[in-house]
Amino acid sequence: MRPQDLIEKKRDGYALQPDEIAFLIRGYTRDEIPDYQMAAFLMAAFLKGMNDEETTTLIEEMLYSGDVLRHDEIAAPKVDKHSTGGVGDKTSIVIAPVAAACGVCVPMISGRALAHSGGTLDKLEAIPGFRTNLTLAEFKATLQQCGAALIGQTKEIAPADRKLYALRDLTATVPFRPFIVASILSKKLAEGIDGLVLDVKFGNGAFMKTIEEARALAQMLVNASRSMGKRTVALLTNMNQPLGRWVGNAVETMEAIEVLRGQLNGDFAELCIELAAQMMVVGGLTNELEEARDRAIAAIQSGAALQKFREIVKVQGGDDALIDAVRTPGQWSPYTKYNDLVMSSQAGFVSHLQTDEIGRVIMDWGAGRTHLEDPIDYNVGLYIHAKLGDAIEVGDPLVTVYFNDLTKREELTARILKAYKIGDNPPKLEPLILEIL
Amino acid sequence: MRPQDLIEKKRDGYALQPDEIAFLIRGYTRDEIPDYQMAAFLMAAFLKGMNDEETTTLIEEMLYSGDVLRHDEIAAPKVDKHSTGGVGDKTSIVIAPVAAACGVCVPMISGRALAHSGGTLDKLEAIPGFRTNLTLAEFKATLQQCGAALIGQTKEIAPADRKLYALRDLTATVPFRPFIVASILSKKLAEGIDGLVLDVKFGNGAFMKTIEEARALAQMLVNASRSMGKRTVALLTNMNQPLGRWVGNAVETMEAIEVLRGQLNGDFAELCIELAAQMMVVGGLTNELEEARDRAIAAIQSGAALQKFREIVKVQGGDDALIDAVRTPGQWSPYTKYNDLVMSSQAGFVSHLQTDEIGRVIMDWGAGRTHLEDPIDYNVGLYIHAKLGDAIEVGDPLVTVYFNDLTKREELTARILKAYKIGDNPPKLEPLILEIL
Repeated sequence: MRPQDLIEKKRDGYALQPDEIAFLIRGYTRDEIPDYQMAAFLMAAFLKGMNDEETTTLIEEMLYSGDVLRHDEIAAPKVDKHSTGGVGDKTSIVIAPVAAACGVCVPMISGRALAHSGGTLDKLEAIPGFRTNLTLAEFKATLQQCGAALIGQTKEIAPADRKLYALRDLTATVPFRPFIVASILSKKLAEGIDGLVLDVKFGNGAFMKTIEEARALAQMLVNASRSMGKRTVALLTNMNQPLGRWVGNAVETMEAIEVLRGQLNGDFAELCIELAAQMMVVGGLTNELEEARDRAIAAIQSGAALQKFREIVKVQGGDDALIDAVRTPGQWSPYTKYNDLVMSSQAGFVSHLQTDEIGRVIMDWGAGRTHLEDPIDYNVGLYIHAKLGDAIEVGDPLVTVYFNDLTKREELTARILKAYKIGDNPPKLEPLILEIL
Repeated sequence: MRPQDLIEKKRDGYALQPDEIAFLIRGYTRDEIPDYQMAAFLMAAFLKGMNDEETTTLIEEMLYSGDVLRHDEIAAPKVDKHSTGGVGDKTSIVIAPVAAACGVCVPMISGRALAHSGGTLDKLEAIPGFRTNLTLAEFKATLQQCGAALIGQTKEIAPADRKLYALRDLTATVPFRPFIVASILSKKLAEGIDGLVLDVKFGNGAFMKTIEEARALAQMLVNASRSMGKRTVALLTNMNQPLGRWVGNAVETMEAIEVLRGQLNGDFAELCIELAAQMMVVGGLTNELEEARDRAIAAIQSGAALQKFREIVKVQGGDDALIDAVRTPGQWSPYTKYNDLVMSSQAGFVSHLQTDEIGRVIMDWGAGRTHLEDPIDYNVGLYIHAKLGDAIEVGDPLVTVYFNDLTKREELTARILKAYKIGDNPPKLEPLILEIL
């Protein structure tokens, strides 16, 4: 077999056989097939498509390019959650301890900030000392001890995905569903899970701008994951405004801790309860979603979830003083030199919020990276006073920004103001969770 | 500008601006844009197309990636011929001296064997001592002295094409008209020509299998070359059987010398006269094609063309003894250890000849290369006894093969026999030159 013949076959619109996809992915992972041949293949597949069988083979090859964990020594059902990314999405920090407190084992391998979207690892690393770079042995030990562990991708997990993702990023071949599905599932299934809950976001703060795109991705993810024997459910959730009130790194971790301390109002807490409940159902702990929700709420109200989070933080090397800083909601404040209030110059109702722009502003203020090695400012963040549909008077606060870099002040606060549209009438509000597949 | 943004633009079907194509080609030639990004761009362009303006910019950028020669010191019109490649096509060896003897300056930069098709350089190098790797200074000196010179691509000529061609070959992006046109014209226009005659071949021995494909390529070549100020004509010629009687390297050079010695019968001599005449017309030496043909024939019959060839061979370091070995047609024989006669097992008419297979057999017997550094056997060759339409009895000779490697004897002679189809009725014969654009 020669790579150029397989590139030609895909270029001409034919489906590749499983052994042909295996030849490409294995050869590429072992550095036997050069980047330029894989780049031509990626573009040909992007433009000519891949069928379900090809996608399944791609997932399997990427999955088995590295270690696939097993946790046979743990009796509890192993379930993880994956979100396609949005602005203000810190659900992992809440649901890992909540689900663990309810009897689900959560072996969670997460990512970093990408484009306008934050990353769970960056938020967790805002906790002084918290190590997301556990070895796989430490990961398993943490899982056994706490029932949950939160780490980043290691070099043993899906190396084909790491190599392919870097190449896709530089060759304009990222936004192609079979590649997205293979990238997500190859990493998630390597965690050694029995089931998976997917939070597929749509809207102006998500990577999928329309419900149709999100639904198509969710359906492909669900079909592929189920065909590989995993109980799987996908929620289509609304990302037309930031989730919760805070956007940043430390501030989002703080907001997650507020929920773990019992603050159960608002869209963010609602989504956490729903996802944790779905994890219990997918894990087979109950068949009743309503009962699962009640258990999640009870785990928070009893303090069991917060205690579980404290355990995880300590075992992973973090300082749990931050947890105690959040005694009552609103009593803590980000550790930045400056803060500004962005006020409305119009009266009316918040009718539109350009969510990805809100995400980009906070990234541009230091919360994200341009290159993987760039340092980030964990403390920079913003608080959303006005959410969609809120009635606003002239001079009412829209957003408070917390920042250290004065040079960007005018540009970035102006961008925030511009991201808000104030209309004369209350907008029609969409539900947070639109569909469940 | 970032390469990935331009890849994305082409991926989504948009035309690139001239400065964008310049950025890609210049960056790639300077090794600033990596192979993998160029590979993704090539595949996106292959599948999404390039318009005429983009193609013209591509040609210009590839042309000016290296030296573009000028021969202002030579008064004669500078005209070259380019063939898209076929089996048994040794016309360059005849027409360069014929056209030069008639007053055309022929600065010819040729290629090597490719796939089933032979290469002028390999045929010329069958002449002991003949140097095709002249420096550009030697090339110019030979042109001034002889009015013609035949060399291979130097590192100064269209370096972007050399780099891109190697990449296209390995990424299944060769057979795309705008790339083919840019590759041909960037090299030919760098020779410093005023006009160009194109021999675009179609049929089972050509790269374009159908007349439609060949016509589309010829039209694009003619339009682009004319738009760059060059007088250009294209012939669509038939490659459904080998051109002439001999296929190989030394044997084709011998057959070319036979024509130069006055053997003017058959398709090969006919095409040589026609191409040389077209070069005179394109060069403005006459407007009458018939007159130009007569001049070409006169140059051969007077011995002037053979004398011109002898001059070129000597100036380029070759031994002209080979020329004198061809005293009368058919009196010389290839210098191989073995020869076999492939005979027909059927009676009837030659109704089909799988020409590319004939080319591949002789390449597989050592006349071609798999890798650029492979040595070739200059003496291996074959003689076509039976051409399309010939009446055949059982036992009549179809082909005589001349070879040194006995191990491939059975397989390769069987393949030759299989390349012939003998029908009950005489086939309808197509003309050699089908159209002139």
